[in-house]
Amino acid sequence: MTKTARQDDQGWTLHPRLLIDSVPIIEHEGVQFRLVNDRRFVWVLVIPKHPGAEQLHHLPPAVRDQALRLVDATCHVLDEIYAPERVNVAAIGNVVEQLHIHCVARFTEDPAWPGVVWGFGAREPAEPFELLARVREIAAGLANRLGRHS
Amino acid sequence: MTKTARQDDQGWTLHPRLLIDSVPIIEHEGVQFRLVNDRRFVWVLVIPKHPGAEQLHHLPPAVRDQALRLVDATCHVLDEIYAPERVNVAAIGNVVEQLHIHCVARFTEDPAWPGVVWGFGAREPAEPFELLARVREIAAGLANRLGRHS
Repeated sequence: MTKTARQDDQGWTLHPRLLIDSVPIIEHEGVQFRLVNDRRFVWVLVIPKHPGAEQLHHLPPAVRDQALRLVDATCHVLDEIYAPERVNVAAIGNVVEQLHIHCVARFTEDPAWPGVVWGFGAREPAEPFELLARVREIAAGLANRLGRHS
Repeated sequence: MTKTARQDDQGWTLHPRLLIDSVPIIEHEGVQFRLVNDRRFVWVLVIPKHPGAEQLHHLPPAVRDQALRLVDATCHVLDEIYAPERVNVAAIGNVVEQLHIHCVARFTEDPAWPGVVWGFGAREPAEPFELLARVREIAAGLANRLGRHS
């Protein structure tokens, strides 16, 4: 969990679109957690650092299962911190082919509710302090949860 | 896999919106597979028949893992039959709170590409024969795959 977020593992590099649109939270056992820089939503990406990975069902089972465990952990952490109405979970990849699983805390008062966030208007970058505060609280939640369960 | 699709298991009943919008494919080990009746997309719903289930991460682990295994199987079957560009997988539930996991075969030539199908225009019901043919081919693919792996 102490590796830097942009470190290249065995030929894996983060897709440039994900690099631009999101900031690193933490890494844990070959998975990078990132926060989409969008003040409208609490939107986490779970990204297995598996070279060439595009779709969950094409991953080696152990890599897939690990990614799904960390998606599950992310959903619990978002529940604990933000108490959202729902956590929307999705693997889409129609635009950015590199595998990334979306975990989005959704609220009845958020601007896209009850629609989905994908394709909803334009991303609104957050203020740096606001973004950093959110990264820190999610990182702490994940570290706590993954420490308890690993 | 031989139970009827609308059978009520231990207090579980299908949400009326899902009943209207989709048709049964098969059931397997407490999970109902349904096809959204929309000629624009090949769109399967994987629905664990677990009373009160709303979000994957709130399920008992065994129920969650079984649902995820069947989502994985569905993605493979969609690959095998339709060779889509991607399978989009999502658990959303902002409108219909009952847990249902979307597995949508996506093609670069489909009307919503590269956007998502959720909220994209209005559902276009298929011709009954077309719908039945699609249900049959997916049911056969699932029966074959689940038979091989169970």
